[in-house]
Amino acid sequence: MTIAKQVSNTRVLVAQIPEGGVAPNKSHFRTVTVTEAVPELKDGAIYIQNLVFSLDPYIKFDFAEGATESPVVGFAIAKVLDSKNDSFPIGSTVSGPAKWELFTLIDNPEKLAEVFNLDKALDPELPLSIYNGVLGLSGLTVWDSLNQVGDLKKGETIYISSAAGTLGQLAGQLAKRKGLRVIGSAGTDEKVAFLKNELGFDAAFNYKTQDKRAALTEAMGSAGIDIYYDITLDDNIDIALDLLNQYGRIVSVGALALHQGQAPAAPANVFNILFKQLRYQGYLVYYRYDQFESFWKEVAPLVKSGEIKSAETVLQGGIDSIADSYIRLLNGEYKGKVSVDIRTA
Amino acid sequence: MTIAKQVSNTRVLVAQIPEGGVAPNKSHFRTVTVTEAVPELKDGAIYIQNLVFSLDPYIKFDFAEGATESPVVGFAIAKVLDSKNDSFPIGSTVSGPAKWELFTLIDNPEKLAEVFNLDKALDPELPLSIYNGVLGLSGLTVWDSLNQVGDLKKGETIYISSAAGTLGQLAGQLAKRKGLRVIGSAGTDEKVAFLKNELGFDAAFNYKTQDKRAALTEAMGSAGIDIYYDITLDDNIDIALDLLNQYGRIVSVGALALHQGQAPAAPANVFNILFKQLRYQGYLVYYRYDQFESFWKEVAPLVKSGEIKSAETVLQGGIDSIADSYIRLLNGEYKGKVSVDIRTA
Repeated sequence: MTIAKQVSNTRVLVAQIPEGGVAPNKSHFRTVTVTEAVPELKDGAIYIQNLVFSLDPYIKFDFAEGATESPVVGFAIAKVLDSKNDSFPIGSTVSGPAKWELFTLIDNPEKLAEVFNLDKALDPELPLSIYNGVLGLSGLTVWDSLNQVGDLKKGETIYISSAAGTLGQLAGQLAKRKGLRVIGSAGTDEKVAFLKNELGFDAAFNYKTQDKRAALTEAMGSAGIDIYYDITLDDNIDIALDLLNQYGRIVSVGALALHQGQAPAAPANVFNILFKQLRYQGYLVYYRYDQFESFWKEVAPLVKSGEIKSAETVLQGGIDSIADSYIRLLNGEYKGKVSVDIRTA
Repeated sequence: MTIAKQVSNTRVLVAQIPEGGVAPNKSHFRTVTVTEAVPELKDGAIYIQNLVFSLDPYIKFDFAEGATESPVVGFAIAKVLDSKNDSFPIGSTVSGPAKWELFTLIDNPEKLAEVFNLDKALDPELPLSIYNGVLGLSGLTVWDSLNQVGDLKKGETIYISSAAGTLGQLAGQLAKRKGLRVIGSAGTDEKVAFLKNELGFDAAFNYKTQDKRAALTEAMGSAGIDIYYDITLDDNIDIALDLLNQYGRIVSVGALALHQGQAPAAPANVFNILFKQLRYQGYLVYYRYDQFESFWKEVAPLVKSGEIKSAETVLQGGIDSIADSYIRLLNGEYKGKVSVDIRTA
């Protein structure tokens, strides 16, 4: 592959920091196009072209902590244009933290440790965006946390908070395949219907219109719950501590409540952990990228065949559309995992 | 062994329930002596003579929830006088829940499940009372919880709250033998000195006169803590959640705070469980009696040789002395594990 000496690079910068936790709007972003020299790489470094950006709510927090004129940073799938790193040969497709720009140099070892090679997983019949969601870090998080922390056993009951998101959807479907009874909560009746009718959840309820504790108690019946899959880090923890069976587990994988500016849970009933011999454990996917191959081997065929479903929205648009799309995401305009595919723009 | 047809049985009954959580005094107990028929046993039942009673703070709670004229119930070591249970042959020495009386029929399957046979452990050179403490359920609790839940690794640091009690003493010494750095807290300077000078703790502090968080922070230094061994179920949990290292563990084995009428912990920082991938797990010794043999094999020689120390107080006195001794226990008059050996009275 021949590499040009310089490129025209378009990037999105922080124009202003939103005040007091307000969500960013157009005035907070600035898009610039500059002509840049293609860098000489030092050992370990890679130079990539970003292809499909992942839009995630958490970005707004990094944004609010950034500095004006600094790049906005998210996650993306990219092509390696130049490389001095054997893990990421020229031409390979990778996923990792990404500045909102067309071309990126990654030479910081910490950032390189967060990049993973998608070549072993890529299926030409699947959209690249799927590796931002159910076959990406989100998928690995769910699959690996259920295996490592959940300790699922056939016949048990699992309860999943905010189950209609990327994590919850997959957790419910994987648990169902292992013979568990699956209960989920979601924030709209449409999502509740989706969980029950499309994803095969045994029970689901609307946590905005129903009393969570009462709804879960009814849904679980005399079987109780054995696992609480926690994506929210809110007062569902208190409810779960009360309702979990002996030897129950809380698998903590997300903190949606904190992302939404809510106070975290402060459970006053942790004595249940002792008296019921519960296990409450946190899981983060970092440093678990070596599990990707096993994960893809098991889950990718199920996604391809449609046995495992995942709602996603893939937007087509240039890098200059990404800030607008992100603002729409924060306004709740899209369904499921959201990506922007800039290849066709 | 020939068994008499009837026995003279002395027992201690609840005379009055203390009002509003007040500790019981003499007026709340009543000792009676009755002549009783020796029972005909049904299958599974045993008839025992109690020898050494364990005095434990928790008894007052059962007491307060009992009924007048009902027996006071604690834990004891006893001799099997008659048996229709292969696990407890006539003549064997057992330990289990015990009414404060001389002779007891145990035919309730739930109560029988809490009885264990001491014959494989008994060492004539050790006092029988030691099987109420460091070589009894308390010892098994510590040894098994550290193995099953603690996941101790050489070079790690463990913090133990209320470390001068039976559980804490053994936990610290076992952890030390596994190559961990051991920090303990205790409620008097004398106990703090005991932990450091007699038990070999690396650091210890007085939680009544020092700020717990500051003292622990200083004691742990830059190594942080990897395991919090929780005997208290109080706000040490909050402190531990903040100070634990990545992949740290909280081993929850006791609820001293609840026994003392304090409100349980309500940690507002459980987000640390997610962000540091902690594991917070409860342990109860029930249903783990099958581990006794392995435990005794490893720990009994260490107790006998003095490599593992345990403070205990053994009172000599008849069954009619037990209520007075218990009141003194609640007043804090004794040191370490307290037993009443009624054989010599």
